Amino acid sequence: MTDSNIRRAREGFLWEGVEVLAYKDKGSAPFRDVTRQLLFRTDDLGCELRYFEVSADGHSTLERHEHAHAVMILRGRGVCLVGTELRSVGAHDLVSIPAWTWHQFRASAGEPLGFLCMVNVARDRPQLPGEADLAQLRADPKVAAFIRT
Amino acid sequence: MTDSNIRRAREGFLWEGVEVLAYKDKGSAPFRDVTRQLLFRTDDLGCELRYFEVSADGHSTLERHEHAHAVMILRGRGVCLVGTELRSVGAHDLVSIPAWTWHQFRASAGEPLGFLCMVNVARDRPQLPGEADLAQLRADPKVAAFIRT
Repeated sequence: MTDSNIRRAREGFLWEGVEVLAYKDKGSAPFRDVTRQLLFRTDDLGCELRYFEVSADGHSTLERHEHAHAVMILRGRGVCLVGTELRSVGAHDLVSIPAWTWHQFRASAGEPLGFLCMVNVARDRPQLPGEADLAQLRADPKVAAFIRT
Repeated sequence: MTDSNIRRAREGFLWEGVEVLAYKDKGSAPFRDVTRQLLFRTDDLGCELRYFEVSADGHSTLERHEHAHAVMILRGRGVCLVGTELRSVGAHDLVSIPAWTWHQFRASAGEPLGFLCMVNVARDRPQLPGEADLAQLRADPKVAAFIRT
């Protein structure tokens, strides 16, 4: 076994040998204060397991895509939009993001919201909402107040 | 969004709508006091995310296979054999099980050891060690004392 077979968790949801990356390239999509760590990626697995952390005032991108996401909350509390529904989530809750479903995560407890996200290695690029999509989402006042674009 | 998009964590590393299953069919392979919960499985993801829990006195099967495993410890402490090495693991540590690598997990802190395991949906069946494999593993006294068959 090489040392790389075990990578220890460090304080603060960091891991040995795992780089803390920007969530996305700056300017490529709207987001605020989100980091990304790639925990597992090997070709024979066919999937990646990533850890995302949204700071207390941050938000992930409001987006949709063909590929599905499988999310487990690991740290903190937050609210997520999935489709047209807002749900509170906390540690170890499971969130399925089906194909072509608008989604966005925000922290809600004055502390970071951290979650695992499993995704296929072969996947399409996210779509951002257009004006018509936003008008549709904002038809619900609660959703209108929640989303960040 | 249907309700099934969010499945809440319950006390004790259980989840709404997720069945607690036997680790394997009884008699199919040696193991003791291990449960399995299938957290995510959809065809478009291509991978499954499972939660396994080994009781304080339990052990997973000593086995190997072509497919890789990506493991994150979620609960408790344990020792895992990966190849010919024994390593202590605790919450949020990451363990990679490469192809054809002998592996076994045991709890080590008088409490259950729980871990997530990501795996491709298309995978081969595990192999159990034969006499020659066991002799090779037992060449190391520490490994000999650890393994359960």
